[in-house]
Amino acid sequence: MTKWVYHFGKETDGKAQMKNLLGGKGANLAEMSSLGLPVPPGFTITTEVCTAFYDNNSQYPDELKAQVLDAIGKIENQMDMKFGDASNPLLVSVRSGARVSMPGMMDTVLNLGLNDKTVEGLIAKSGDERFAWDSYRRFIQMYGDVVMGLEHHDFEDIMEQHKRDMDITEDTDITAEGWKEVVANYKEMVQRQLGKPFPEDPQEQLWGAIGAVFSSWMVPRAITYRKINDIPSNWGTAVNVQSMVFGNMGEDCATGVAFTRDPSTGENFFYGEYLVNAQGEDVVAGIRTPQSLTVQGKEREGSDLPAMEEVMPAVFKQLDEVRHTLEAHYKDMQDIEFTVQQNKLFMLQTRAGKRTAAAALKIAVDMVDEKLITKEEGLLRLEPSSLDQLLHPTLDPKASKNIIAKGLPASPGAASGIVVFSADDAESRANNGEDVILCRIETSPEDIHGMHAANGILTTRGGMTSHAAVVARGMGRPCVAGAGSISIDYKTKTLSVGGNDVKEGDILTIDGGKGEVMLGEVATIKPELSGDFGIVMQWADEARRMKIRTNAETPLDAQTAKDFGAEGIGLCRTEHMFFEASRIQNVREMIFAETLEGRETALAKLLPEQRKDFIDLFKIMDGLPITIRLLDPPLHEFLPQTMEDIANFTKESGLEESYVTRRQSELHESNPMLGHRGCRLAITYPEICAMQARAIFEAAVETNATPEVMIPLIIGVEELKILKEVVVAQAEAVFTEKGKSVEYMVGTMIEMPRAALMADHVAVEAEFFSFGTNDLTQTCMGMSRDDAGKFLPDYVDKHILEKDPFQTLDVAGVGQLVDMACQRGRSARPDIKLGVCGEHGGDPSSIAFFEACKLDYVSCSPYRVPIARLAAAQEAIKQSKEKKLRSVA
Amino acid sequence: MTKWVYHFGKETDGKAQMKNLLGGKGANLAEMSSLGLPVPPGFTITTEVCTAFYDNNSQYPDELKAQVLDAIGKIENQMDMKFGDASNPLLVSVRSGARVSMPGMMDTVLNLGLNDKTVEGLIAKSGDERFAWDSYRRFIQMYGDVVMGLEHHDFEDIMEQHKRDMDITEDTDITAEGWKEVVANYKEMVQRQLGKPFPEDPQEQLWGAIGAVFSSWMVPRAITYRKINDIPSNWGTAVNVQSMVFGNMGEDCATGVAFTRDPSTGENFFYGEYLVNAQGEDVVAGIRTPQSLTVQGKEREGSDLPAMEEVMPAVFKQLDEVRHTLEAHYKDMQDIEFTVQQNKLFMLQTRAGKRTAAAALKIAVDMVDEKLITKEEGLLRLEPSSLDQLLHPTLDPKASKNIIAKGLPASPGAASGIVVFSADDAESRANNGEDVILCRIETSPEDIHGMHAANGILTTRGGMTSHAAVVARGMGRPCVAGAGSISIDYKTKTLSVGGNDVKEGDILTIDGGKGEVMLGEVATIKPELSGDFGIVMQWADEARRMKIRTNAETPLDAQTAKDFGAEGIGLCRTEHMFFEASRIQNVREMIFAETLEGRETALAKLLPEQRKDFIDLFKIMDGLPITIRLLDPPLHEFLPQTMEDIANFTKESGLEESYVTRRQSELHESNPMLGHRGCRLAITYPEICAMQARAIFEAAVETNATPEVMIPLIIGVEELKILKEVVVAQAEAVFTEKGKSVEYMVGTMIEMPRAALMADHVAVEAEFFSFGTNDLTQTCMGMSRDDAGKFLPDYVDKHILEKDPFQTLDVAGVGQLVDMACQRGRSARPDIKLGVCGEHGGDPSSIAFFEACKLDYVSCSPYRVPIARLAAAQEAIKQSKEKKLRSVA
Repeated sequence: MTKWVYHFGKETDGKAQMKNLLGGKGANLAEMSSLGLPVPPGFTITTEVCTAFYDNNSQYPDELKAQVLDAIGKIENQMDMKFGDASNPLLVSVRSGARVSMPGMMDTVLNLGLNDKTVEGLIAKSGDERFAWDSYRRFIQMYGDVVMGLEHHDFEDIMEQHKRDMDITEDTDITAEGWKEVVANYKEMVQRQLGKPFPEDPQEQLWGAIGAVFSSWMVPRAITYRKINDIPSNWGTAVNVQSMVFGNMGEDCATGVAFTRDPSTGENFFYGEYLVNAQGEDVVAGIRTPQSLTVQGKEREGSDLPAMEEVMPAVFKQLDEVRHTLEAHYKDMQDIEFTVQQNKLFMLQTRAGKRTAAAALKIAVDMVDEKLITKEEGLLRLEPSSLDQLLHPTLDPKASKNIIAKGLPASPGAASGIVVFSADDAESRANNGEDVILCRIETSPEDIHGMHAANGILTTRGGMTSHAAVVARGMGRPCVAGAGSISIDYKTKTLSVGGNDVKEGDILTIDGGKGEVMLGEVATIKPELSGDFGIVMQWADEARRMKIRTNAETPLDAQTAKDFGAEGIGLCRTEHMFFEASRIQNVREMIFAETLEGRETALAKLLPEQRKDFIDLFKIMDGLPITIRLLDPPLHEFLPQTMEDIANFTKESGLEESYVTRRQSELHESNPMLGHRGCRLAITYPEICAMQARAIFEAAVETNATPEVMIPLIIGVEELKILKEVVVAQAEAVFTEKGKSVEYMVGTMIEMPRAALMADHVAVEAEFFSFGTNDLTQTCMGMSRDDAGKFLPDYVDKHILEKDPFQTLDVAGVGQLVDMACQRGRSARPDIKLGVCGEHGGDPSSIAFFEACKLDYVSCSPYRVPIARLAAAQEAIKQSKEKKLRSVA
Repeated sequence: MTKWVYHFGKETDGKAQMKNLLGGKGANLAEMSSLGLPVPPGFTITTEVCTAFYDNNSQYPDELKAQVLDAIGKIENQMDMKFGDASNPLLVSVRSGARVSMPGMMDTVLNLGLNDKTVEGLIAKSGDERFAWDSYRRFIQMYGDVVMGLEHHDFEDIMEQHKRDMDITEDTDITAEGWKEVVANYKEMVQRQLGKPFPEDPQEQLWGAIGAVFSSWMVPRAITYRKINDIPSNWGTAVNVQSMVFGNMGEDCATGVAFTRDPSTGENFFYGEYLVNAQGEDVVAGIRTPQSLTVQGKEREGSDLPAMEEVMPAVFKQLDEVRHTLEAHYKDMQDIEFTVQQNKLFMLQTRAGKRTAAAALKIAVDMVDEKLITKEEGLLRLEPSSLDQLLHPTLDPKASKNIIAKGLPASPGAASGIVVFSADDAESRANNGEDVILCRIETSPEDIHGMHAANGILTTRGGMTSHAAVVARGMGRPCVAGAGSISIDYKTKTLSVGGNDVKEGDILTIDGGKGEVMLGEVATIKPELSGDFGIVMQWADEARRMKIRTNAETPLDAQTAKDFGAEGIGLCRTEHMFFEASRIQNVREMIFAETLEGRETALAKLLPEQRKDFIDLFKIMDGLPITIRLLDPPLHEFLPQTMEDIANFTKESGLEESYVTRRQSELHESNPMLGHRGCRLAITYPEICAMQARAIFEAAVETNATPEVMIPLIIGVEELKILKEVVVAQAEAVFTEKGKSVEYMVGTMIEMPRAALMADHVAVEAEFFSFGTNDLTQTCMGMSRDDAGKFLPDYVDKHILEKDPFQTLDVAGVGQLVDMACQRGRSARPDIKLGVCGEHGGDPSSIAFFEACKLDYVSCSPYRVPIARLAAAQEAIKQSKEKKLRSVA
């Protein structure tokens, strides 16, 4: 016979690990019972009943009725009360409880079992007529609302009418007699609206409530929530039926919620609130001011209201013991609910408490100190992405905000400053010591110096991967991108949105973590990387197997990443070095040249600059490995964009206007992502590759660096072979000239599906692979990041893709190519170095996959380095555990 | 001991199958010797010597010298002459002979062995002093040129000087004494130029010639040729040394070349030329008019000169017997060379003869009739691509041509007509019965009606896959694309190129097979599909396993393809139906709509038109399967392009100008190939899919068709699942409304790498896969067809890719995805129907791969259908042979 019902109380069948069967609440009630904590007895109807119910045409399993009857009997025995008994009635609460808490689900029915007879028994037992009738009317109201589908306001209307009739204003002024009358009126209203009476039979009440819980599993709001959060509908919900306890039976009663430690700071301090003579909902409702549990808490808050510690010292002591018992048992900070009935403590709920990132760190560090948990457990408990909160300035939560527009949260952090509309203005104002927010319709490589100078960047066009967004994230600058409701007029130097005109010199604040744009200055708080951060990072470094590198090309980015613990540069995008205003002219002259000679003249001017870039970078990284990717983007990205730029370029270069116009149009591409870029440029113009290689080796010889030269965008071994020859020839030439040589490697990006498929051939020539998962995702899925905005949201909404594949690697599809390339690459070169340098290198769930592929390293933007360190550690721990388990099995 | 030298003659070591070792010429000389045909004895130094020579620092293998000496001895024995003997000298020829004939290689040295002494022996033996001295000077001239590296004109100068001195003008007037003097002067010139005498020692002469052959393997021209034709340099060349026979020893001597059948028509007719008293080079040189071999040939040519059949009837009879022997033996038409020395026939070469496509068909059919070969052998001997010649009009080869420009050979066939510069003009002139050539800078969907009306299309911009090229090929219209030297001025209706101005109304001729543009009318010949074509196609249909379908959407294309033997439509691109002028306005209104309602209004107008399209198509195909692909291209392809179009559209639609401008810009995409297209459109706008499905089913019910509905551009099963529901719902609705239903299938394109990787999941929902290898190649390689022109030529030149992957499938890379998807698809649905509908479906070497994958069908443009039928048959035969061989092994 299937067991559909699990008891808790004196006799307990369940445990915390049975969350899937009993739901979160039920499993933890069982666990607390087993720990001997004072849990009002009850039982849980399993989630399997829910599934069986829907599989079987909304019929309950045959044995359920008997098992529930039996379970009620067990409560009756333990409580020495009887369900439906007029003199000694057992009352119960009925609550839903899925594996994860879910909005839309039926929440709670309290005081179930009351009727016109049992209310008398409650009067007799409590000796409080008003309490009993109040409890009864609360029950009718809740049950009528959530089980019978009546409108909440119909009940409210009756109560209001009663107060008007009695000429009173507060609920608390309603007398026992008054509540009795309200009850009568409620029941009459039910009869009138539904054509049937409110159920008097407690059994009927109970099955009505159970049915309501199961039915609520399929209401549209719950279905939608499950869809969005990818919760399978066959998980089902459990139902918890529990003996009632009352926190509102008098001054020796109370109810409260607490966290076993401070969820904001993580401090080991009993943090919580309670109310005397109240039911749980009163604490949340905010009608009365809840009081602190502890004297320390009361003092901190500067409250006059007495602490529980003072009012009910014995019960508080018991609660504090429960707190320690729970932490010792669960080894985590708990969020608990309790009720005190006539000086007797009852525990109603426990679960892991939500906390801020800072608190999470502190709790983990403290618990390891307290030997509650191991370092590994401490690491596993942290959410890597949440570390981001700690690395960027944030808005002071106490400050008031006047939000005038919303855009995309393109680069986290908050910043306030004077509005400017051009990169030059940003730079000159910043040089004068002013904080500036650079506001542009879009940014382009021309704006880099201004973005650098600005405290924050705001654009009205472009997505999460627009130029502004990518560059800002790289620089760690807060950025709100694509705030489409704002219109910018460069001529009048004004931005307008919803009737607000903001002129140059006015002040704006942006929150790049939320995408909000605010008028005026809003105070920000600078991040403080506490000692806990450092300790946790050290644990992570001990635990992880993969190295963490960074994607950086500027000295600033490289230094930031190194400070955050980067162990090398996994991707130095040399083209970013070309964007700088001082050299873009030379780059353009190279591109516009139609002859080898013309290109070589321009390249000769670029060589010393590029060499200096590398020298700076090599010095900062000081012996750490640096992967340098040769020129990658389509040439036309370097072209002058505006009419003014074109005119300037033509003038400075001394070229014919018609020539410039023609070349500009020749260089246009229909699909630049699939065009003449990456190694394809170097195949047609090997001299570009030669110049870059020379700059790398000249710099390496000077600084004793060991560069890893990376060829982008290959589709097979042949391109690599050809370009490796060019690189090696330059290396040998430089070593001969300088009379000194350095170690170096030549490898390649794997970012085209064909390269992944041909990886065994490629590995013959490549000393390392770095997966360019951005491009690999684009080509594997045939989706341009720049254009996917028009349909990707629909794809995620309709679960065609579970997540934005440009943020989290599509393991099912793109992952196959990565895995295949790893295996094939290793088959040809067992010691090949494997890494990833796409945006996914900083995404925790993608890092899990990379650990499974046993990559040597991931590389990510500087501000993602700590996140990657933690995520890599977690995965190393998890996967080594799984391996152990498998080897045992 | 390695055998470096193979004999032929009385004693023969080699055979035809040893081409790799002996080269083509050597192997066939050995084969003819073995057949007992009169081959002057000789020997072949193997290609392995060449390889060993280059591997070993230009040293010959040790044993070579002895083996050559021995081989010379064998010739001496058989000929009863002696190499270098003053009274009875053996003379030899030395020729190169690689596996395939190769320009740049040393060709021939004749009469080797002559010197001041042996020339006397030749005089004695031939009794012809003039012949002997002439032979001697020819030898010095050839040897001096090809072995010693002297300039040809230095020899010519001496001869001219002699004629001036003697006051004669013709070579034939030079006397024996005169040639003797020329010989002396030649030798003196050699001594003067090289500082060493011309070698008198026949052994030295021989080794000099052998060395020259091997050296010529590495001359730049040969290296380049090998690179271009992908011939490995380690194949090497062989050297053939053969006893001399003389066709120029008197009137009982002759020399000639022949084909065993007519290479132009294929007729079984002995086709060839000869010259009495001449050496081989004289026939080719064209100084004397060669005479026909047969009386029939002489009559055909209307020649007065006597045929060999008349002049030397006995020898001719012998030659005709050789002809039959060779055909019976080689079972193919042969290209032969022969010499008659003093009424004795000698065979100098035989090889398979080159032939026109028409001749190839006729020869195959005749030889099967003659039971020389089987149908399978007949099929295997044909070159599928050459059939293309037979399907399009061609220029009369006798006509003179004034070529004014060259462009890309974008769509084969030739056409003459009046020049027009707009689609409307093309249409109205064509309606008046005029032949027109539509000349445009580029074409766009707006021009379709004009392209249809035109006899030929000429563009000055765009590549082999430009709109003009693709559409023209689909329509079977000749097209020259991207003729960049031509400039077109629409205003003055003039095109200019190299000083020629061509105005509207003037006449041009284009040759779309060669890319030539000619002034005036050049007569064209219409293709005649002979009975042989039909017979061969019937054999092919019996032999092949794969079905051949066509890519077609217009009634004309469908009918053409059906006439060419298409067994269904594999790809009906519904968007092409939208391009028609009459409905583009409605399509645009749909696209510009921002609301569901707006789109539905426009779609309602399109429904009846689309239904009619399908009815027409279903009627033509009359029960054959038709795969209909739902809307595929990016929406913006339908947008009005020119300012005038935009103005017209705005006016007709009644929309605000600012609205049109805004939508136009919103619909722009950075990388349209990777953008909002294919099923992605249907996911965001399911109503488009619903309209198309309804049109399909309404048409199918009316015509009893069994449509196959194809969803494009999926990346996994989910999109298919969602859209299949939309299609099925429409089918059921239509069937209910009409009270009648038809069979149908729903399947998908596999054209994104991810779809291939997820094929096992996709096949759960898909009843068929059709590989879209164009897009699959683009995404697998990350190469846009539209942009690859800038680097693809370099990629093919540098052997990064062996061929243009958009013409011939990249089996190594893209092929892996196709193969994987076939296997995975079948694993989930064993009877899944598999086909291909990219351009590769009509490419013979790609078809070989598709046969290996055991696809059910290939689909190609109408004019490729016969090619595909033949290629599929050849592959079925080859692969079943291989299978048999494997099963034997």
